[in-house]
Amino acid sequence: MKDIYIVDLAGFEESKTFDAFFMVLHKQQRTTKTNKPYLNLILGDKTGQVESRVWDPGDARIAKDFERGDTVKVRGCVSRFDDRLQMKVEHLRKTVAGEVEKSDLLPCTTYNVDELWQKLLGFVESFTNPHLKLLLKTLLADAGLAQAYREAPAAKQLHHAWLGGLLEHVVSLLALADRVAPHYPILDRDLVLTGVVLHDIGKVRELAWDIGFEYTVEGALLGHIEMGVELVGKTIDGLPGFPPRLRTLVLHTILSHHGKLEFGSPKLPMIPEALVLNFVDDLDAKMQAIASEFEKSIREGKGADELTGRIWALDQRQMLNTREWLKGDATPEPGKLF
Amino acid sequence: MKDIYIVDLAGFEESKTFDAFFMVLHKQQRTTKTNKPYLNLILGDKTGQVESRVWDPGDARIAKDFERGDTVKVRGCVSRFDDRLQMKVEHLRKTVAGEVEKSDLLPCTTYNVDELWQKLLGFVESFTNPHLKLLLKTLLADAGLAQAYREAPAAKQLHHAWLGGLLEHVVSLLALADRVAPHYPILDRDLVLTGVVLHDIGKVRELAWDIGFEYTVEGALLGHIEMGVELVGKTIDGLPGFPPRLRTLVLHTILSHHGKLEFGSPKLPMIPEALVLNFVDDLDAKMQAIASEFEKSIREGKGADELTGRIWALDQRQMLNTREWLKGDATPEPGKLF
Amino acid sequence: MKDIYIVDLAGFEESKTFDAFFMVLHKQQRTTKTNKPYLNLILGDKTGQVESRVWDPGDARIAKDFERGDTVKVRGCVSRFDDRLQMKVEHLRKTVAGEVEKSDLLPCTTYNVDELWQKLLGFVESFTNPHLKLLLKTLLADAGLAQAYREAPAAKQLHHAWLGGLLEHVVSLLALADRVAPHYPILDRDLVLTGVVLHDIGKVRELAWDIGFEYTVEGALLGHIEMGVELVGKTIDGLPGFPPRLRTLVLHTILSHHGKLEFGSPKLPMIPEALVLNFVDDLDAKMQAIASEFEKSIREGKGADELTGRIWALDQRQMLNTREWLKGDATPEPGKLF
Amino acid sequence: MKDIYIVDLAGFEESKTFDAFFMVLHKQQRTTKTNKPYLNLILGDKTGQVESRVWDPGDARIAKDFERGDTVKVRGCVSRFDDRLQMKVEHLRKTVAGEVEKSDLLPCTTYNVDELWQKLLGFVESFTNPHLKLLLKTLLADAGLAQAYREAPAAKQLHHAWLGGLLEHVVSLLALADRVAPHYPILDRDLVLTGVVLHDIGKVRELAWDIGFEYTVEGALLGHIEMGVELVGKTIDGLPGFPPRLRTLVLHTILSHHGKLEFGSPKLPMIPEALVLNFVDDLDAKMQAIASEFEKSIREGKGADELTGRIWALDQRQMLNTREWLKGDATPEPGKLF
Amino acid sequence: MKDIYIVDLAGFEESKTFDAFFMVLHKQQRTTKTNKPYLNLILGDKTGQVESRVWDPGDARIAKDFERGDTVKVRGCVSRFDDRLQMKVEHLRKTVAGEVEKSDLLPCTTYNVDELWQKLLGFVESFTNPHLKLLLKTLLADAGLAQAYREAPAAKQLHHAWLGGLLEHVVSLLALADRVAPHYPILDRDLVLTGVVLHDIGKVRELAWDIGFEYTVEGALLGHIEMGVELVGKTIDGLPGFPPRLRTLVLHTILSHHGKLEFGSPKLPMIPEALVLNFVDDLDAKMQAIASEFEKSIREGKGADELTGRIWALDQRQMLNTREWLKGDATPEPGKLF
Amino acid sequence: MKDIYIVDLAGFEESKTFDAFFMVLHKQQRTTKTNKPYLNLILGDKTGQVESRVWDPGDARIAKDFERGDTVKVRGCVSRFDDRLQMKVEHLRKTVAGEVEKSDLLPCTTYNVDELWQKLLGFVESFTNPHLKLLLKTLLADAGLAQAYREAPAAKQLHHAWLGGLLEHVVSLLALADRVAPHYPILDRDLVLTGVVLHDIGKVRELAWDIGFEYTVEGALLGHIEMGVELVGKTIDGLPGFPPRLRTLVLHTILSHHGKLEFGSPKLPMIPEALVLNFVDDLDAKMQAIASEFEKSIREGKGADELTGRIWALDQRQMLNTREWLKGDATPEPGKLF
Repeated sequence: MKDIYIVDLAGFEESKTFDAFFMVLHKQQRTTKTNKPYLNLILGDKTGQVESRVWDPGDARIAKDFERGDTVKVRGCVSRFDDRLQMKVEHLRKTVAGEVEKSDLLPCTTYNVDELWQKLLGFVESFTNPHLKLLLKTLLADAGLAQAYREAPAAKQLHHAWLGGLLEHVVSLLALADRVAPHYPILDRDLVLTGVVLHDIGKVRELAWDIGFEYTVEGALLGHIEMGVELVGKTIDGLPGFPPRLRTLVLHTILSHHGKLEFGSPKLPMIPEALVLNFVDDLDAKMQAIASEFEKSIREGKGADELTGRIWALDQRQMLNTREWLKGDATPEPGKLF
Repeated sequence: MKDIYIVDLAGFEESKTFDAFFMVLHKQQRTTKTNKPYLNLILGDKTGQVESRVWDPGDARIAKDFERGDTVKVRGCVSRFDDRLQMKVEHLRKTVAGEVEKSDLLPCTTYNVDELWQKLLGFVESFTNPHLKLLLKTLLADAGLAQAYREAPAAKQLHHAWLGGLLEHVVSLLALADRVAPHYPILDRDLVLTGVVLHDIGKVRELAWDIGFEYTVEGALLGHIEMGVELVGKTIDGLPGFPPRLRTLVLHTILSHHGKLEFGSPKLPMIPEALVLNFVDDLDAKMQAIASEFEKSIREGKGADELTGRIWALDQRQMLNTREWLKGDATPEPGKLF
Repeated sequence: MKDIYIVDLAGFEESKTFDAFFMVLHKQQRTTKTNKPYLNLILGDKTGQVESRVWDPGDARIAKDFERGDTVKVRGCVSRFDDRLQMKVEHLRKTVAGEVEKSDLLPCTTYNVDELWQKLLGFVESFTNPHLKLLLKTLLADAGLAQAYREAPAAKQLHHAWLGGLLEHVVSLLALADRVAPHYPILDRDLVLTGVVLHDIGKVRELAWDIGFEYTVEGALLGHIEMGVELVGKTIDGLPGFPPRLRTLVLHTILSHHGKLEFGSPKLPMIPEALVLNFVDDLDAKMQAIASEFEKSIREGKGADELTGRIWALDQRQMLNTREWLKGDATPEPGKLF
Repeated sequence: MKDIYIVDLAGFEESKTFDAFFMVLHKQQRTTKTNKPYLNLILGDKTGQVESRVWDPGDARIAKDFERGDTVKVRGCVSRFDDRLQMKVEHLRKTVAGEVEKSDLLPCTTYNVDELWQKLLGFVESFTNPHLKLLLKTLLADAGLAQAYREAPAAKQLHHAWLGGLLEHVVSLLALADRVAPHYPILDRDLVLTGVVLHDIGKVRELAWDIGFEYTVEGALLGHIEMGVELVGKTIDGLPGFPPRLRTLVLHTILSHHGKLEFGSPKLPMIPEALVLNFVDDLDAKMQAIASEFEKSIREGKGADELTGRIWALDQRQMLNTREWLKGDATPEPGKLF
Repeated sequence: MKDIYIVDLAGFEESKTFDAFFMVLHKQQRTTKTNKPYLNLILGDKTGQVESRVWDPGDARIAKDFERGDTVKVRGCVSRFDDRLQMKVEHLRKTVAGEVEKSDLLPCTTYNVDELWQKLLGFVESFTNPHLKLLLKTLLADAGLAQAYREAPAAKQLHHAWLGGLLEHVVSLLALADRVAPHYPILDRDLVLTGVVLHDIGKVRELAWDIGFEYTVEGALLGHIEMGVELVGKTIDGLPGFPPRLRTLVLHTILSHHGKLEFGSPKLPMIPEALVLNFVDDLDAKMQAIASEFEKSIREGKGADELTGRIWALDQRQMLNTREWLKGDATPEPGKLF
Repeated sequence: MKDIYIVDLAGFEESKTFDAFFMVLHKQQRTTKTNKPYLNLILGDKTGQVESRVWDPGDARIAKDFERGDTVKVRGCVSRFDDRLQMKVEHLRKTVAGEVEKSDLLPCTTYNVDELWQKLLGFVESFTNPHLKLLLKTLLADAGLAQAYREAPAAKQLHHAWLGGLLEHVVSLLALADRVAPHYPILDRDLVLTGVVLHDIGKVRELAWDIGFEYTVEGALLGHIEMGVELVGKTIDGLPGFPPRLRTLVLHTILSHHGKLEFGSPKLPMIPEALVLNFVDDLDAKMQAIASEFEKSIREGKGADELTGRIWALDQRQMLNTREWLKGDATPEPGKLF
């Protein structure tokens, strides 16, 4: 069982030897100036990653058979090099089944994925538009796609950047959109919720998450918006009788969900449902980023009276935890005026 | 009773004489090159305004006693001059009580103001935070302020630009915010709703709406954000025991509600409640602007298949009425796949 | 035969009656305040359009059977109204076959379309990459698509905004790209030229040009980039053995050809071929816009020494005709220094 | 007496032990992986700050009774860690009165504060507008406010970021504004000078400077502009007979002094006096930043012929010291032409 | 003597005939559709210009011998056409000497040019740097340049757009800069003042002002910054012993005086003197634009309580006349607090 | 002969001693806190530079007579300090003639400079415009200028940042422009090519490249655009009979070649030739930057399937090597459809 995480290493002294389980994210053979071969590794777990060196790969204590993507048990110590933490590896072997959980090696949603999935299906069941309902059921009935949808992170970083993050974000959004939609009678609720389920579906192809979270080359060249539009467009084309104008609106909702050209949407939202999708998506991503930042502040020992550090996903803004800060207010009861 | 509106004049022939009731928005004495005095007026009603000329102010058929702000009955005809419609006035007299409704002279909410007001009070009653509840009750119990709050437009133009528009916008926002707040347990619902009620309260001083909708000079120099902060800050200072940190957060929420420095907020939202306020305020303003534009499209005889004109409040974007456009889809039922 | 064009009307006196052939771009029944019905028309030809009024639609000299899209012969005179020229129509009948050329009614390329088409096919024949060659031949062999490709304008306005403009622009670009590609050995010439042929192919669906040049609603919601990517992607999927990575690059080239996110490309060019396509496309569009502006300057009687008016497609810049301006330099021969 | 400053540490060898006086800016108890407690400190003086570690807090040579804000004498040596200098502390005790000057611990104006204060009062005495004179005298007569005004830095960093910096900046601005105002007869000199004295008065609440220079949480949430407006507005409200329009202009001048919305002013300057205030404030801040940079260049041993480093407060621009650079020009006398 | 100005025409009735003196700014022969020749003229004076038509150029009452640039006496009346005022000309003859002042035909400084010139020379005389003094004396001693410098407007529009405007702006700037320079001992006063005199000297070639104010083609292609640098650089090269570094600084000051790349300066100010020049130049231009706008407001009959219209040169901002507005404050004396 | 380069040092162990040849880019005497003098050096070669320390300058193994700009042989080892590699120098002596090539010490074009020069002259010979031909021949016949033109880098960094880079860039551009010019008959080929040869000629004065690549102070204050315009303008003024309008166009082409004000061009391209120059210059710079990045990727051991790192000169974009990536496509032949 894993008890030492990458995030712990920053506090270690350079001379301290320790054992830990990590995933091999990169492996490269290199040579020192004196022609001695050594291995350059990147080891990671759900809390981060660390550059590592095996200075004597021929040593019997270093396994010969491990590859990128393998889980390994290593012994060694940290050093600081060039402003980055580095690990010097002295023992290394592949793990055996059961020694370490995959969920310890990549960051993972804290929610139960099966329950999230049932919630998602429940929302789809509630649709009254038969075409949109059939479209979503068809997509989610595809075993490979469903598996990817359950696993994918919502982003490489910034927000919901963990296994199951996409599903977690979508289920939160469905509940939020379901609250907002009835407020505006002009909105077609099923179309808004369809947009919620499909807006980031291209991420299952844009990102790879088996060994760390990376963009695929195809993902970098085409982007999840185009990939999602293609996937959904083809699926619709396989559904007899799907109305063509509804098809255009579904695709438009995916295309425009980033809300601005400079954020990578080739079209601005031009129907009310697309506008609402952009708003709730943006709000939910920011609220999650704030929640993560508040947790990080506590983890780093900041006081309840303090602002967080600058948050990249919120234009470098600092945030304040309302509830915590208000505890500093002494007076619990107002005076009587009425 | 009023039966001819400014908006109708565009369709009139130049030679056609008609009678109508208008409000005098501006009145200025001028002289032609030949030293003949004439009057330059701006006449208006709830649908717009028109520049008007009285070429013979000495004529017995032209009242002598009317001023800016009076309601008048005029007879005359339209002409076109310099790309603008102009009215030539031949008869003019002040109206007597009951001849014309004030609500015909300025655009006005279509909702019942008393009902909106009761809804607002109902939300305040639901608060659990005694300080915030007392703050809002104190403000809304001020007769002059309450009257202004019930009458004020939400903006000079762009969205909810009509009498009662501020109240209509706030009540819509309260219901929307009350839907969104429970979705994020981190949110202090009463603080969000307080922000909704107070964010635009400075508009009661920034704008004047007795004779058209205009910025006051003080409003132009200080802005409704500062004016609202001052009003709320002073009110709080009169409440014994109001917690100082809560005071700071209430004022911050007003200060930051435009969401960006370049939109005139001197601070970005730095607590979750302020962030949510900015989102719902922006969303509600845009949804109302869209609804207005759809109505305008129908009024102007555009077909259901057509995009609206470019909308100033949405970055010159065109919008499409989802429901109307989808009526062009023939197929009502999907094929059977499952 | 047509001898009076929209562009001529600006010079007409208001009282002058004339006969002319136009296309009916819009037709709407309206009523004056006195309940007299009248017709509001927009009439157009290849040089522009003019708002027109039939004040007495019941008159025997006004045909009853014409619709939007019909070509008509009208008699009437111009008037000025609200800063726009307007035409008053007194006679109106539908034209008979042969009375007027379609090419007089919509602006049209001055090149021979068949010759442009042969040049396009010739470039495709020169490809050495069998997949790309087959892809283009398959697309261009589709009769409906080929017909649209030959007719479509390259834009609604700005540059090559005439029938055949897309083809004219593409053929110019092919020749230009074929000059540039060999200069950089890193470039895959066939991929660059494929990008040239396909980059704007979605315009055949984004635009409608039967009655004036307009965006279709689908075009406004999805855009020609997405429409082109979908068309090309589906065509590739019908080609057995088309290499998947090559497919990604072809689609990327279409996606990124606007060169910047804020110009509506959801991805920046990330392969050298896409970068070059963006440059030559931009250069050719600007060079054509300059040439049009120089012609317009001459048409408007500006002198050779003068700068053009401000050009919308070049950031409101004025341009100078080098050759014409240099004629003002007297000295034809340099002195002898060597 | 203090003889070693933070700024000196960068040049120290890692093995060298030294004694020095610092202020404790932060103090936090932490634990190593092996559960050994240690102290993490930030120590500072007027030249900067350094992260420091006490690896053995139980050692008798480490005082037990010191807190954040205390002045201490430490013995230790530097090390480099993660791109930052760090200090290892071996001895630590609180200082006794007289051992070290507070002015050595925080950067401080080089001017005599009493003299600056007298100059400020002298300018106020010169006012002819009795309301503005009374307003300033009332504010400056408040002992607590006056003390804060004398101590406050003008900024956390960027310009005049030292004790007394606000007063130094204001007195320089008063003299500058007093030179500029008579040049434009349209200007109300007393209003310009009032703006100078009050524009940054909110900084006495936005910033805290007892232990380093930091934003208060209230300062971060409300900003010095709002804080200054509130303070001045309330003071005016306590002055019987202060003219209401003059009140609006004084507050407007404070609100708009940053000159642009994106710099945090919710209003642009809309009276000539506010425009001038924005110009002179901006100019004086930049001139001071340049002077500081020239000193820094000399301190860092750059030659007189060299440009400075890039200056953050001047858009990353480099500056050249005119006088120094011109010394490289040999010819002292021009030729005779007249 | 001229008693009717372009600015008066807006108030004229269409049927009223009048006589007036104007300058012919453009003259073009055109033909109506019925092949009747007519003349299209642009007539102007110091208050503006008006498009004019001579419908019967063969009429004996129309002079045959006038050209662009001539001063003429015309009789006719106004009409409105296409949102612009137009004049119909019935009589036209060239003026004889003495009938009309040139200063009535182009807008002109209200200051005495000879006095401005003496002030300019006086500032130059006060220099202590012999090189800079000689440079300016050499330039200003050139008769053609001096004449142009005295006549040139400071801009085509925006600020000081009248004959003598350049000189008026420079003399105001010299006095302002002479007030500011001593405030910062780091500044080389003579270099600042040299920058003031030379910064816009290229305008004497960029603009043409004999017949209206226009950019020359060379001016449009090169700009007054480059033109000024070339003129000054060549002049310096003719001065024996002018120090090369000083030459670089003088040219840098001209190059950088617009203060930002996007305003057309290819370099940002990098010496303190150039920074100050940019500030005072910008301030003086804006103060003059405000003064002009206040006059315009009064001319247009706006009340003292009103904001001006939106001012193009100040980012579309409205301004308020402090002195006038404060007259609305009743209370002349403050209460007694001390 | 040089066998160890700066770029190799990153891979060295801290304890490893080595010998190498470098150029001394900076040399400064400093003192440690204990008053021990030491030398701070920056050593460089064509692959980069490294900060270096001589801790014992009095040691007999350290030469006394070397200066900035000298080539030295050093022995020592690397250490890491403050996120930068540092070298500790133990032996140091000046090199003797022949020990090391200058081309090893500064990065240098891989092309033969004489051949590039002949190509340049060949293009000039092909001109038909005698004035432009004479202008270029005159400039290139100046021995000092020609030498500088052959040596100068095209930039301090970003693209063609090596000795001979300017010439290499210009010759590539000449060939490219010569391909593009005939495509647009409106273009004056000789004027385009003249712009190519002259657009960056000011870099011979803006940059210094004897000891590293740096901006001169004059270069920083005036920029290569102004410096080039002055050099070319003066040269033209020495050519009897050079037509004045052609002079203006040549200078305009240099002035405007950056294409945008914010890139430091004080004028936008306003003739077609200047527009084309801006396009080809920008394209060639980017293509070269991409080629360099592909080489760097290979050098750093990235796989052919991988995107490059983010490229500063292309807005932080990653690029993909088309040819290499397509090798991953298995299918070499398309299916048969025709």
